[in-house]
Order: sequence, then C-alpha cells, then structure tokens
Amino acid sequence: MIGLIRVFTAKDNEVVQSHGKLIQENYAVPVISRSIPDQPYGIYDDETEKTAIPKIVDLGVQLEKEGCRILIISCAADPGINELRARVSIPVIGGGSSASLVARSLGLPVGLMGITEGVPPVMRELLGELIVGYIRPDGVTNTTDLLTEEGRRAALESARSLVNQGAKAIVFACTGFSTISFAGEIRRELGIPVIDTVDSEGLIAANFYKQTR
Amino acid sequence: MIGLIRVFTAKDNEVVQSHGKLIQENYAVPVISRSIPDQPYGIYDDETEKTAIPKIVDLGVQLEKEGCRILIISCAADPGINELRARVSIPVIGGGSSASLVARSLGLPVGLMGITEGVPPVMRELLGELIVGYIRPDGVTNTTDLLTEEGRRAALESARSLVNQGAKAIVFACTGFSTISFAGEIRRELGIPVIDTVDSEGLIAANFYKQTR
Repeated sequence: MIGLIRVFTAKDNEVVQSHGKLIQENYAVPVISRSIPDQPYGIYDDETEKTAIPKIVDLGVQLEKEGCRILIISCAADPGINELRARVSIPVIGGGSSASLVARSLGLPVGLMGITEGVPPVMRELLGELIVGYIRPDGVTNTTDLLTEEGRRAALESARSLVNQGAKAIVFACTGFSTISFAGEIRRELGIPVIDTVDSEGLIAANFYKQTR
Repeated sequence: MIGLIRVFTAKDNEVVQSHGKLIQENYAVPVISRSIPDQPYGIYDDETEKTAIPKIVDLGVQLEKEGCRILIISCAADPGINELRARVSIPVIGGGSSASLVARSLGLPVGLMGITEGVPPVMRELLGELIVGYIRPDGVTNTTDLLTEEGRRAALESARSLVNQGAKAIVFACTGFSTISFAGEIRRELGIPVIDTVDSEGLIAANFYKQTR
C-alpha cells in the first residue's frame, strides 16, 4: 500500500481521496489517503506550517505501522518531509520535489503556476535556473477559486503568459490544478508539456512500489 | 516515437536495441534505437567523449527530423546532453540524470555501482550528499565482464558492501547493469530498492511521451 497524506482537514471523504484516486487510476497501485486533524484551512503561512508538521509526522508514522511501503506528502511545498523522513524507515516523497525532479530530468525551461505568493522553497531550490517565471492566476487565492469558469480562464491566461516569457513546459506548484485535471486543458490549448504535481508523486511512488511486490 | 541514442557502435542489432526493448516492454511506448558510428569501444575517456559528442548531436538532430518527440541519451554519463539540447526543439533526457533525479525524489541515502573509475559528474552533482559510496565491482571494467558468473558475484558483493556503508538504495551508474537485469537480483538478495538507469530514463520518457499522443 502507498500512504498518502493530505495536509489539511476535510470532512468530505471524496475530497480526501481525490489525489489518491488519480494515482490509483493512472498507475494501478493501491493508495490509502488520510488528512491531518484540525486544520480545515490547511497550510497557508509559517505558523500553520509549524502546527501541521508534527501532525504530518504522526500520520506518516501511523501509516508505516499500518503496512505502507512508501509515503507521499501530497503538497507542492513538501511540508514536514525532512522531519518525517527522520522518523520512518520507508521512503517519503513530496509533491513539490517529485514534480521539480521530473521537470528537471526533461531539462526544459519551465513556468510555474501556483496559488500562493511565491514559489515553494523546495521547488525553487530543485529547479533553480530552469525557472523562467511564476504566476498566481488573477483572483485565485485558494483551490476552490479554480473551480469557477473565471478561475479556469485566469489560470489558462497565466500559462499562456509563462509561455510568452519563454517557458517550454508548465509545472504546477499547487496540487489544486491536479484535482481539476487542468493539465489536459493546457496541453490542448497551448500544446506544451505539463508537469502535474500529483501525477509526478504518483509516477515516482508507483515505480518504487512495483519493485517491492 | 521515442528516439534512443546508444553511445557506442554495435554491429549486432540486438545489442543496439536492448535498452529500447526494455523500455518498450516496461512502459508500452514505441522506441527507435540508433548507435553512433565508428566507436566500437564507446566512451571510456575524455578523448573518446570529445569524439562522440558531435556524433550524438548529429544523431539526435536526425531522430528529431524523423519525427521523434523526445530523445534519450542512454548512458549514465549523459554525454553531449547540453550540446544536443541546444540543437533540438524536443526534450532530451539522459540515463545518468534520470536515475539520479528518480533517486533524489525518494530521498534515501544511496550507494552507486558502476564500471568506471569514479561517479559520472552529472550523477555526483545531482545526488550530492545522498551518496554514501561508489564501487566498481572487482575485476569488472567493461559491461561484458558483467555477463560472467564471477562478474555477477562481484557485483552483488559490491551492492552488499554499499548497504553495509549505509546505503538504503542502490543506483546504477552504468547501463550495463540494466542490460543484464541485475536490479531484480539485488532486490531479491538484499531486499532494497534499486534505481536502474534504463528503467529511469524510460519512466521519464514514457510519462512525457504519453502526454503528447
């Protein structure tokens, strides 16, 4: 089993399962998804990240105990990844680092799209000079904004603008774009490759998981 | 089509196709393989690398013209990758960088196994502090040595020694280990994950290729 950690609290089980479901469908591997307790708004600043990290660690430790053979922290900022790696004996991968490393292996200049003020530090560190720009779509400050027609239009505009800045591929710096399957829309409209956060963590996790069977 | 470049000259078509065949079988994508001309001994020092690079570039340019949508330089040293990236409009991936980036995304301390004097510079750069050691198996100086019983025994001994040094995963720094499917043997005998050069380049290339269909 692959254990997937959502870094916010959702009451709706369908929301909790959404990333895991994408990975199960694309890579034919079993995924168990859990969310951390008491953070309905997830991580949106240093304080909430600090609060979340011990919960991420506890959840990861628990998932290892339940038999998971690899863990995913399903967030573009990889919150708590080093802390969790120090506490478990199985690999821990992060959405941000997986997407960055997949993008880096292609070697293309990339444009990043996210919903926060800036690029998650782990992505900046791993992609470095390959980054041509980062954009937060106009009016999009949380993932639900991406569900509106206006939000999608703004997001597509951002991708187009990054291509005009020289990007040869788009990398998602937020898993919200994965949940709405926005990669397909960019590929269709702009004809360039998209590195999707959840797809990348799934690619790496499934490749590892299949070895351990 | 994925275009795969072998960085030596082989008369035997089965040898030329061996990496591409592994990728086709594992990832269900079409691969066309070609080898560079007039270098039966491949790349084994600075001089032979210098001679090979323009041939790798020419071959890559030709494969793009023939309709390939992504190119692989199937060698752990990524020879000529920057030169070729500068000349084509499609992504170029390398065996060494792909394996390093897949390993890095798992975040485990790794032991590297190769058949050359030291770690290929691209792998050292990308894996950095994750590397706990590098070993060339005793008596193994070219890939054909891996085909003997003695060579396989020495290679397994090397992997065991890297685990004793603290490696939690093995990364191949030579595609020769891929050709003889040595990863399965290490997993069976030592029970640790193995990041295989050809498998990693195939993983990244196939993930990209499937987007472009």
